[in-house]
Amino acid sequence: MIKRDLTDPDAAGPVSPAVTLGILGGGQLGRMLALAAARLGIACHVYSDDPDSPAFEVVRRFTCAAYTDVAELARFAESVDLVTYEFENIPPTAVSFLESCRPVLPGGKALTITQDRLSEKRFVTGLGLVTAAFAPVDSLADLVEAVHAVGRPAILKTRRFGYDGKGQVAIVEDSDLGEAWRAIGEAPAILEAFVPFEREASVVAARGADGTVRAFDLTENVHRNHILHTSTVPAGVPEPVQQDALRIAAKIGEGLDFVGVFAVELFVLRAGATSRLVVNEIAPRVHNSGHWTLDGCTVSQFEQHVRAVCGLPLAMPRRLGNVVMTNLIGTEVEQWRELMAEPGAALHLYGKRCARAGRKMGHVTRISLGG
Amino acid sequence: MIKRDLTDPDAAGPVSPAVTLGILGGGQLGRMLALAAARLGIACHVYSDDPDSPAFEVVRRFTCAAYTDVAELARFAESVDLVTYEFENIPPTAVSFLESCRPVLPGGKALTITQDRLSEKRFVTGLGLVTAAFAPVDSLADLVEAVHAVGRPAILKTRRFGYDGKGQVAIVEDSDLGEAWRAIGEAPAILEAFVPFEREASVVAARGADGTVRAFDLTENVHRNHILHTSTVPAGVPEPVQQDALRIAAKIGEGLDFVGVFAVELFVLRAGATSRLVVNEIAPRVHNSGHWTLDGCTVSQFEQHVRAVCGLPLAMPRRLGNVVMTNLIGTEVEQWRELMAEPGAALHLYGKRCARAGRKMGHVTRISLGG
Repeated sequence: MIKRDLTDPDAAGPVSPAVTLGILGGGQLGRMLALAAARLGIACHVYSDDPDSPAFEVVRRFTCAAYTDVAELARFAESVDLVTYEFENIPPTAVSFLESCRPVLPGGKALTITQDRLSEKRFVTGLGLVTAAFAPVDSLADLVEAVHAVGRPAILKTRRFGYDGKGQVAIVEDSDLGEAWRAIGEAPAILEAFVPFEREASVVAARGADGTVRAFDLTENVHRNHILHTSTVPAGVPEPVQQDALRIAAKIGEGLDFVGVFAVELFVLRAGATSRLVVNEIAPRVHNSGHWTLDGCTVSQFEQHVRAVCGLPLAMPRRLGNVVMTNLIGTEVEQWRELMAEPGAALHLYGKRCARAGRKMGHVTRISLGG
Repeated sequence: MIKRDLTDPDAAGPVSPAVTLGILGGGQLGRMLALAAARLGIACHVYSDDPDSPAFEVVRRFTCAAYTDVAELARFAESVDLVTYEFENIPPTAVSFLESCRPVLPGGKALTITQDRLSEKRFVTGLGLVTAAFAPVDSLADLVEAVHAVGRPAILKTRRFGYDGKGQVAIVEDSDLGEAWRAIGEAPAILEAFVPFEREASVVAARGADGTVRAFDLTENVHRNHILHTSTVPAGVPEPVQQDALRIAAKIGEGLDFVGVFAVELFVLRAGATSRLVVNEIAPRVHNSGHWTLDGCTVSQFEQHVRAVCGLPLAMPRRLGNVVMTNLIGTEVEQWRELMAEPGAALHLYGKRCARAGRKMGHVTRISLGG
């Protein structure tokens, strides 16, 4: 295979982007990335260790193997022009091996920083942005000290491999710190002050290799049991706060040398007559709170990500109206037939066979056009 | 494999439509059908005799074999719950064999009638609808007689296997009839009077198994070299004419016992201060003039087709604005990078490697929101 210079328009071939995109991870995000790539004539090869990966169903080429299987990773790299990923908790050894064979985008810097809650918080505060008060916790003694510094209520989180509320425990007035420390497996952790937010919001943005940033409109999010329940656009915050959110996203994208789509989760705090924003978390990938763009915007987050990592021009997103995206978690997906018949509702099912509790099975987007 | 009753909501399984859809034909229509099915969690198996089929790239399961290969057709049928098709010129033997194993939708009646221009014209006039004057031609003597009856100018078309202007020859004032007869290979044919149309238009509509019809807005079409060049919505005809077109489509859908998406191509004739419609052709499948629905409507023709054939509720289509869809034919696709950068343009590339003259390589849809 000849490695092509993806930034050279002429080298990409005359009739299409002529790129094969490797995707690490086979969940619904990988599936929707592959579907978006297909619109642009781009073939994908999906790599996942889960034989039931929903993304396998929508591509001609997939590999089902461990992320530690160097021979399979090498074959995968050989078959693609570049690699991206749909989840941030990929073993770093897999990423660094692949980086020795092919471009891996978004780059290693974004992954290294965001895989570790402590380095992420330090990175964000280093940019002059506001986060919750935090302190590193590597022992029970650290935890005692951290609770003194940060105060209660607070949340103890493992530094690595947490998602959807996993690896977290709340420290409230009567919490036993020893118990909390054991609850997260005595793993390297971070204590974060609880932020008394009025709302939660997120910005999903694409950043091109040339530094161009195209953000989608600020999205207001409601979580249930630590899992995203609904995303509403426009978010119910004043225009200056929305602009502030976009500035924060641009700053973070630049700081990470990011190429692709990422999300910044924000807390919106009431501050007198106005609001202020606190950075909660960065997701170095397409994000659940951007699913509304599939039906509610002129371009989806998935297509923007494919464009960005393949060195193609970013599209200019325009929202089609007022949008509410609702996740279908576990058995909620059993309403699919009624949702399919609901006027104005766009349904997405991820093709997962088993509706385990807490599992994201699909989503529905309701749009009021022109809003 | 247990054959499921697709009309029984409970039998389809609780978490998704739980159907595997077989698609005959692997071109861009099959590709876009498979992508639409994937949104609904429906897996597809594509069958085509062309190893370079663009639809193979977006499915996990495909079969590359001749349409006459009964063993492969049987294996294909065994792996799916029902079969649909993306082109009407499938060998009837393949369809009748598959019908003995699985439901094939739209049904055999639609295919039998529309595969033959003569039976199609007789069917349409039998419904009381207007077509161009026509006469069957099975010999040179027939042709001479037909030209007397129909007049010049007229078009001589083979009854079967024509598309994009193939198998057609114009009969003008000085045409030699013997030459024309040889030009179409002396195949069973039909002579159609030339219709002095003002515009060409089409209705794309979905019909469910329960007889529900949901039509997309009337589309105005411009052809170049017998190939669709642009589709514009709304069409530039008065509202009563648009309503008339929808009535014609509903009548044809009912007459064919159609289940799925079909298109009716129409000629719009100036008739004094108003216009009248002449039925040109029926396409018993998703249609190029419906591609605008992918980006310009709340539901695409491809999703509506999947819904209809799988016994799912049809969506209620709503147009998002004024839309122009332009095909990218042959080397026109080489503009893809500029089109990708154009604000308000949605680009689709079909992943074909070679831009032969006259080949549909992709399309671009330009939308003025809220129009």
